[in-house]
Amino acid sequence: MDKLQAGYLFPEIARRRSAHMLKYPEAQVISLGIGDTTEPIPEVITSGMAKKAHALSTLEGYSGYGAEQGEKQLRAAIASTYYGDLSIEESDIFVSDGAKSDISRLQVMFGSNVTMAVQEPSYPAYVDSSVILGQTGQFQKDVEKYGNIEYMKCNPENGFFPDLSTVSRTDIIFFCSPNNPTGNAATREQLTRLVQFAKDNGSILVYDSAYAMYISDDSPRSIFEIPGAKEVAIEVSSFSKYAGSTGLALGWTAVPKELLYSDGFPVAKDFNRIVCTTFNVASNISQAGGLACLSPEGLEAMHKVVGVYKENANIIMEAFTSLGFSVYGGKNAPYVWVHFPGQSSWDVFSEILEKTHVVTTPGSGFGPAGDGFIRVSAFGHRGTVLEACKRFKQLYK
Amino acid sequence: MDKLQAGYLFPEIARRRSAHMLKYPEAQVISLGIGDTTEPIPEVITSGMAKKAHALSTLEGYSGYGAEQGEKQLRAAIASTYYGDLSIEESDIFVSDGAKSDISRLQVMFGSNVTMAVQEPSYPAYVDSSVILGQTGQFQKDVEKYGNIEYMKCNPENGFFPDLSTVSRTDIIFFCSPNNPTGNAATREQLTRLVQFAKDNGSILVYDSAYAMYISDDSPRSIFEIPGAKEVAIEVSSFSKYAGSTGLALGWTAVPKELLYSDGFPVAKDFNRIVCTTFNVASNISQAGGLACLSPEGLEAMHKVVGVYKENANIIMEAFTSLGFSVYGGKNAPYVWVHFPGQSSWDVFSEILEKTHVVTTPGSGFGPAGDGFIRVSAFGHRGTVLEACKRFKQLYK
Repeated sequence: MDKLQAGYLFPEIARRRSAHMLKYPEAQVISLGIGDTTEPIPEVITSGMAKKAHALSTLEGYSGYGAEQGEKQLRAAIASTYYGDLSIEESDIFVSDGAKSDISRLQVMFGSNVTMAVQEPSYPAYVDSSVILGQTGQFQKDVEKYGNIEYMKCNPENGFFPDLSTVSRTDIIFFCSPNNPTGNAATREQLTRLVQFAKDNGSILVYDSAYAMYISDDSPRSIFEIPGAKEVAIEVSSFSKYAGSTGLALGWTAVPKELLYSDGFPVAKDFNRIVCTTFNVASNISQAGGLACLSPEGLEAMHKVVGVYKENANIIMEAFTSLGFSVYGGKNAPYVWVHFPGQSSWDVFSEILEKTHVVTTPGSGFGPAGDGFIRVSAFGHRGTVLEACKRFKQLYK
Repeated sequence: MDKLQAGYLFPEIARRRSAHMLKYPEAQVISLGIGDTTEPIPEVITSGMAKKAHALSTLEGYSGYGAEQGEKQLRAAIASTYYGDLSIEESDIFVSDGAKSDISRLQVMFGSNVTMAVQEPSYPAYVDSSVILGQTGQFQKDVEKYGNIEYMKCNPENGFFPDLSTVSRTDIIFFCSPNNPTGNAATREQLTRLVQFAKDNGSILVYDSAYAMYISDDSPRSIFEIPGAKEVAIEVSSFSKYAGSTGLALGWTAVPKELLYSDGFPVAKDFNRIVCTTFNVASNISQAGGLACLSPEGLEAMHKVVGVYKENANIIMEAFTSLGFSVYGGKNAPYVWVHFPGQSSWDVFSEILEKTHVVTTPGSGFGPAGDGFIRVSAFGHRGTVLEACKRFKQLYK
């Protein structure tokens, strides 16, 4: 624990936001910082949950502990909806309380004696959970990196996909696509190379697809679209970014039975044991919500919500592009990654906050390769996103 | 992971139950095994949740991510309801998805280089999460124990409280009271000795009070009733056994700010970082349910539900007592601990299942000191509990 640097990124941003609001109590602060959904949960989903809640107060509708792995019906619906043609089955799906918790449970399963690779920049939870479990070396102040982690640089020069010929072999590879924070989705050809790389090295690929529903082009929505991926990959995903985060606190992890350790032991058996030992079960009201999400009406409603955020992303991209900035992401993800060459991310963050009262996220919070960038989140009501863009245009005109 | 023995206890029981049902498809199987609640969740609580679910589909009622530590209002209500006179404050309370998950998060915080003590018999999650994190030595087949764990034997001879003069110093002490599986609640005098023991040894006491609401006598309901406990103890608790388990998936951990590592660093700061890094937040619908639980009507309703289970426990105690068995627990907990001297727990379990179609829990599943006992859970509808007792009386008459 002592090795961990500073605060976790988002609490730090919340702290600065609060300080700003104290300084400018009259300001209309807009938050495009933390990736938090803002649109109401579609009624078809909340009704499903309310109905389940009411049922729990009746003798016939009551149920106690369900299976730790999640309710059979929900596991089956996830498998058929997201992996219908990919031979991922109900028994490969572990329902959970969310992707962040599952990443930590996977780290606990891998233990402290593994090496890991991670995209840089990346969502802080991969590295921080690794540090907490003692997988890493000390933090090296000069390069702002931890020892014993292989950082795979992703930047405009390499199209946000690492040059695998320079990446050392590790036991575990974390890969997030569409990416948080860069908003970039890896192509089929890139993911095919990544799967081959993992196979050649005997690595386990942990693929975070929490933003898959935001993909607009023909990038794969699941790593299991890549032939051979089932022998090397675990996929972590979530309902959070589709149907409102904390109302559900619901995600899942797919561990194919084809994925084996080098001694032939199935990884899914280990993960099952981890889930049974360190986790109870996702709230069954949330699971009812998940099931409602996957009904035809629920899917349509989720697509509508996602559509709102995607249009927001477009508006933000256009605003920064019209101001002459180089802008990345946004097309396949709810995040826009704006380049401020030569500037420090925290300086840009502070200037935007001070002059426009808009909270963004400094790119360097996702690792030093993110410095010079800010992440602008498309999660916001349309009106506030338009207002934020108006203020950006005033600041940078 | 390789060190872990056999399956986690409860999935193993579920497996045997399923096999039994295949063998006797006509049998009316009664489950008094896994400690799973059966009574409907009081309407005041489910209404609170349904209302929150509906609110989430409106613009005004929607909220995204809340604080990782839980909603302010719920933290305050937990502090004032359960720790009103004990100077445990809102900021000491971390709301979570349940006690089992929190135990695992605490283990992650402690890391692999600590020593731990645990009651024997005990709830398997303490030891199993410790094994997974690499705190323990190998499993020693002859004594059926892991190396590097201090087992504190609790049996009828010592009144289910360990002889502390024979217990070696460890960094962490797990202690569950009212106890699962023995059903015994430690007295004020015993807990005063335990707190002193932890203080003398510089140990952190992790106190699991998930069954506190079942206490009938004047045993402490919280470790913080013991003077000085705030400097040595963390308390883990849950709504599960009061208001229906998986509907809520809601618990909490109290980490007093007075609890410091030997270098003076507050343990609560470390736990806060763990929670922010490895956990998102409990479902906000569940948190609304928690808040409803703590309203005057909710508290009354929970006491009624607990009352039903306590009367079940009485019925089970009386049945076994009338058959001449030595019976423990039951008075302050929903578990009755029945002694079958000289017999193997799994043999007794199998005989009861085979001859009465009642699922119990073999005491040896909680550690070798539990052998010769079975745990009978009081979680069941009154009718099935009465029927089970009738069958016990036929079997052992």
